Amino acid sequence: MEQLTLVKVGGKIVEEADTLQALLNDFAAISGHKALVHGGGRSATRIATLLGIESKMVDGRRITDAETLKVVTMVYGGLVNKNIVAGLQSRSVNALGLTGADLGVILSDKRPVKEVDYGFVGDVKQVDGDRLASLVAQGIVPVMAPLSFSKQYGLLNTNADTIAAETAKGLARHYEVNLTFCFEKKGVLEREDDDDSVIPHITPDLYEDFKSRGIITGGMIPKLDNAFDALRCGVSQVTITKASELGKGTGTVVTL
Amino acid sequence: MEQLTLVKVGGKIVEEADTLQALLNDFAAISGHKALVHGGGRSATRIATLLGIESKMVDGRRITDAETLKVVTMVYGGLVNKNIVAGLQSRSVNALGLTGADLGVILSDKRPVKEVDYGFVGDVKQVDGDRLASLVAQGIVPVMAPLSFSKQYGLLNTNADTIAAETAKGLARHYEVNLTFCFEKKGVLEREDDDDSVIPHITPDLYEDFKSRGIITGGMIPKLDNAFDALRCGVSQVTITKASELGKGTGTVVTL
Repeated sequence: MEQLTLVKVGGKIVEEADTLQALLNDFAAISGHKALVHGGGRSATRIATLLGIESKMVDGRRITDAETLKVVTMVYGGLVNKNIVAGLQSRSVNALGLTGADLGVILSDKRPVKEVDYGFVGDVKQVDGDRLASLVAQGIVPVMAPLSFSKQYGLLNTNADTIAAETAKGLARHYEVNLTFCFEKKGVLEREDDDDSVIPHITPDLYEDFKSRGIITGGMIPKLDNAFDALRCGVSQVTITKASELGKGTGTVVTL
Repeated sequence: MEQLTLVKVGGKIVEEADTLQALLNDFAAISGHKALVHGGGRSATRIATLLGIESKMVDGRRITDAETLKVVTMVYGGLVNKNIVAGLQSRSVNALGLTGADLGVILSDKRPVKEVDYGFVGDVKQVDGDRLASLVAQGIVPVMAPLSFSKQYGLLNTNADTIAAETAKGLARHYEVNLTFCFEKKGVLEREDDDDSVIPHITPDLYEDFKSRGIITGGMIPKLDNAFDALRCGVSQVTITKASELGKGTGTVVTL
C-alpha cells in the first residue's frame, strides 16, 4: 500500500497570516499523497462577535444554534478553507476544499440532546473513504473543513480532531495512513512546564502507565483515545507535534 | 457528444429560503449531466454591512478591497455555496462546491487599474474544462461560486455571469452545453412592462434588429453579448428564463 500523510491543524495556526504561510510551505513540501484537515474556531468566535452572535461553549465545544451554523459555514467552509486551498494552489499543490456535504464525503447524525443541547452538531457516522481515495489517486489533495453532513439536517458543525481521525480511518483501507495532529506543544510532554520533555513514543501500555502516574492528563486524554481508536481501525501511525516541526520527524509517535 | 445543462442563478434566488428550495427541486429534476453557477451579492452586502464594511459599487460591480474579499470568500465560497451543495446532496444530487481555486479550475488575472481600481477582481483567463469534464464524467455535479484564482493574488472576486459563460465555453469541447441564465423576468421581453412579451428566439440578426429598434437595451446587452460569445466558442444553446420556469422549456433561446 502507498503511504498518505493526513495533517490536522488547529484554528490558531491557519488563522494568522504568518503561521499559515509557514504551515503551507511545510505542508507543500511533504512528498507523496496527502490531505489536510483544519479548524477555525477562533475566527468563528471573532466573526460571530462582530455579527452580534454570542458564542456559547460547553467543555470547549461550541453550542451551534441556527445563526452560529451560518457563521461556521461561512468561516470554516469559506474563509479558512478557501484561503488554505488558494495558498496551496499558489504552491502548485492541487488542493480541493471539502465540507462533509461536498460529494457527501462525511455523513453524520445530529447529536442527540442529553444534558446539553449542542444544536447543529454532528457525530460522524460514515466517511466515504472510497471517494476520498479516488480523489487522492487523481493527484488531488483534499482540504477538509470541520463540517459534516446529514441528509435530514444539512451541514453540521463537527470537531476537527474527529474529522481528522475518522477521515484517517476511512482512508486506511486504501493507504498506509500517517495521521499527524499539529498542536501548540512539540508533542506529548512528560513535564508540562518543560517544552523539551517530549515523550518520543507512546504505546497502549505506556499510555496506561503515564495516565496512572498523572503525567498524561486533561485535554490530552481524549486526543490520545482518538489516536488509539484510529490505530485500532487500521491507521498506521499517529504523530502529535508542533505545526512548525511538521515533516521533521519530531514529536510524539503513537502506535499500537 | 452528450448534453450538459449549466444553470446560472443570481443571488436573490439562492439567498431566500423558499426560492432556494424551489430552485433546488427544479435543478435536481434536470436529467443528465449538469452544473450550477451561483451569485450571492445581496448576502455579501448584508454581511459586509453587519461587519461595518462599506460596499462600494461602480456600474453594478463591487469594488473589492482586502476586507471585502474576505466577506465574499466567506459568503460566496462558504455560506451560499455550501448551502446549495448541502441542499442538493439532501436531494441525492452528488454536488461538489468549487471556487476557481479548488483544483485550479478557474484561473484569472487581477483586473488592471484604469479609470477605476476594482481591487481584488479577476478577469477569467482559463477554465480547466478537462478537469471539470472529468468530474462530470464521474457523476459529480459542480456547484461554482463566483470566485476565480490567480497564482499571484489568490482568490479574486468575479462576476457570476462571466464564470457561467466561461465555464460553458470550457466544457463545450466535451459536452453539448446548454447554458441557462436564470433571471427575474421570464426571458428577454419585447415590451419591458409586459412580462408575457417574451421573445422566444434570438439570433444575431434579430439581436441587431432589436437593438436598433431600442427593444433590447441596458443590462440585457452585456448579457446577450456574453451569450453570443459563448455560442461562438462552441456552446450549443443559451437560454434566458425565470428561475421558477427552469426545465419547462420556456424563456428566450439564443442561438447563432
